[in-house]
Amino acid sequence: MSIITLLTDFGTQDIYAGVMKGVILSICPEARIVDITHDIPPQDIRTAAWQLCNSYRYFPEHTIHVAVVDPEVGTSRRPLLIRGGGYCFVGPDNGVFSLVCRSLKEYAAYSLNRKEFFLNEVTQTFHGRDIFAPVAAHVACGRLPEELGDPVTDNVILPMAQVLSDDLVLRGEVIYIDHFGNLITNISREEFSAFVRNQPFLIRIADAAIRSVYRTYAEAKPHDIVALFGSNDYLEIAENSGNAASALGVDKGTRVIIVRDLGT
Amino acid sequence: MSIITLLTDFGTQDIYAGVMKGVILSICPEARIVDITHDIPPQDIRTAAWQLCNSYRYFPEHTIHVAVVDPEVGTSRRPLLIRGGGYCFVGPDNGVFSLVCRSLKEYAAYSLNRKEFFLNEVTQTFHGRDIFAPVAAHVACGRLPEELGDPVTDNVILPMAQVLSDDLVLRGEVIYIDHFGNLITNISREEFSAFVRNQPFLIRIADAAIRSVYRTYAEAKPHDIVALFGSNDYLEIAENSGNAASALGVDKGTRVIIVRDLGT
Amino acid sequence: MSIITLLTDFGTQDIYAGVMKGVILSICPEARIVDITHDIPPQDIRTAAWQLCNSYRYFPEHTIHVAVVDPEVGTSRRPLLIRGGGYCFVGPDNGVFSLVCRSLKEYAAYSLNRKEFFLNEVTQTFHGRDIFAPVAAHVACGRLPEELGDPVTDNVILPMAQVLSDDLVLRGEVIYIDHFGNLITNISREEFSAFVRNQPFLIRIADAAIRSVYRTYAEAKPHDIVALFGSNDYLEIAENSGNAASALGVDKGTRVIIVRDLGT
Repeated sequence: MSIITLLTDFGTQDIYAGVMKGVILSICPEARIVDITHDIPPQDIRTAAWQLCNSYRYFPEHTIHVAVVDPEVGTSRRPLLIRGGGYCFVGPDNGVFSLVCRSLKEYAAYSLNRKEFFLNEVTQTFHGRDIFAPVAAHVACGRLPEELGDPVTDNVILPMAQVLSDDLVLRGEVIYIDHFGNLITNISREEFSAFVRNQPFLIRIADAAIRSVYRTYAEAKPHDIVALFGSNDYLEIAENSGNAASALGVDKGTRVIIVRDLGT
Repeated sequence: MSIITLLTDFGTQDIYAGVMKGVILSICPEARIVDITHDIPPQDIRTAAWQLCNSYRYFPEHTIHVAVVDPEVGTSRRPLLIRGGGYCFVGPDNGVFSLVCRSLKEYAAYSLNRKEFFLNEVTQTFHGRDIFAPVAAHVACGRLPEELGDPVTDNVILPMAQVLSDDLVLRGEVIYIDHFGNLITNISREEFSAFVRNQPFLIRIADAAIRSVYRTYAEAKPHDIVALFGSNDYLEIAENSGNAASALGVDKGTRVIIVRDLGT
Repeated sequence: MSIITLLTDFGTQDIYAGVMKGVILSICPEARIVDITHDIPPQDIRTAAWQLCNSYRYFPEHTIHVAVVDPEVGTSRRPLLIRGGGYCFVGPDNGVFSLVCRSLKEYAAYSLNRKEFFLNEVTQTFHGRDIFAPVAAHVACGRLPEELGDPVTDNVILPMAQVLSDDLVLRGEVIYIDHFGNLITNISREEFSAFVRNQPFLIRIADAAIRSVYRTYAEAKPHDIVALFGSNDYLEIAENSGNAASALGVDKGTRVIIVRDLGT
């Protein structure tokens, strides 16, 4: 009994995600399909990479994760399968698996070039339906990656927003804003701790200055802006009982700076 | 084969609901997961209580209903399990089960305090993933409530908007506005009938005055504002082929008043 | 193991779709339920007909497709079951199956009039829960259409937007705008080819004039407006890496005209 997850930018108003499920169940009726999300911002490969990397581990071994954010569908970009960490990943070779690949100790990549595992007619605009769903279904029903394509080693790994630090300052950015308006940064707990070393610090974002890290949202007063480590252990700026993104007027990409607090 | 439903304020853009499903399936691979909704307004415990109360009975006996609207996650508020009416309910002890509890003849409540049924590492910001999903999965796979926590009798019951009536007037309010803009009030068919007693009446909401109750939306002329009893037997104000909330400029909490129609 | 799909205008904020699933699983615990979409614009029967027609074939034989877009719920409009093409379709007899019926070589229609297959209490506002979900569940568990209702031949077929052409001009319209802002027209590849006959042409929509048809979005320069045939083989106007609906300021119903390009 194999699980197939879907993470796409298709939204939920259209039939695209539903049709992929129909294709999967036509090939592998026992597959169990779980939506991670279909609301990745259109064509935002980096957000998809981030969301997939934060979710894949919570599924049982042998889960097949399908990610379709695919602005170059129908061009020469390859369909790809990654095997690693006990999971399979299926989607376009455009960097959507960049963070997953970095998180895996080892993995093998395959270029999906065996048309017998695709739908009979492959369009140039919907490889989710015509290639990725059928391939995932064949894996769910027992096909091995090596039957589905040829090994490759040059799969696309995108550069991601880096955290930079020196003795005086650590610079990161908001890489995701969730449904609650929480501002999730690319600063990990490790990076934060290594910089701060239990000394006083100041977190600056927009016009907010934050001097402490809470354990949870509700430790602060309602509508206070707080910093804490979120459920994936990255530094997060939040508003207790509110929406930090609106309160601070902040977008994805906004700079977050941590400096030593000299107490002046 | 156990069913687990999910009702949250997580929205669908994030990975939070998907990750809960991964956790459930990792512990209890046979569980069947059904979304009730993830679009409860953020941190709106009362709306969640209302929605859960109107949906739980339509599921098969032994269904496990998980509700996560949890503004105080990580504080001392307890994780709770309620057993009653042939169902289990799992979520924070913040009142989200208030209406379910009132609707049950008898129930037992348990404080979930056995860490061996949680994820190994419990964060302070995502108990849906770390506590409620794993506990629900353990119940789905046969664990009994008494194995998961200690009985309690002081679970939180929130006061809800009351219907008030005397000889002259019945006062209720809009407690929910659905996707179609239908205004669902807290006035039940029973309360309405007991007040009206087959005499002429006048329903007042915003600047509308309604003198009859229809059986269904399409009995009225298109764009007429009508009153009827909705699918859960509460008085509802609707616009045939339209959106009553926009037409009347009405929000949740708006007063609805019923008076005797003296025909003047 | 039967599959039941759901296509409705219920949205995802309410409990309506979830409650239908509870009803289905109460009657037929083995049914597998797949959402096609719940975001059909409220009461837009024609969009539902289009979406259903483009998705049903991708599901395995014996799938039961439930479509609930039902502005006349509770009136004399009949509940309907259509059997054809290896599938069953369940929903209101209001034209929502118009395009499915046209696409089927043969089909049989049944008026659902056996109350023993409905919920005990049928409301006048939610036949999705009270009639269509239970009937679909009974079909999934082996009931035959002829047990559920009486054959009829006068099921509603709505007129749909027509493509008109003469020697000089072909006139169609935008019948759907997807999540990406792609403008999907009612002009099929066949109709287009029969008109154009490999001669130069000009596609006019709003203030855009397009002289070629691409194979895929990314063949054009970023932000170019392009024409191509979409995944269901209808002419589509798109913006590479953008949203054509916003770029052109175009709504559903906008005229699309193809003329011969005389090269002046």
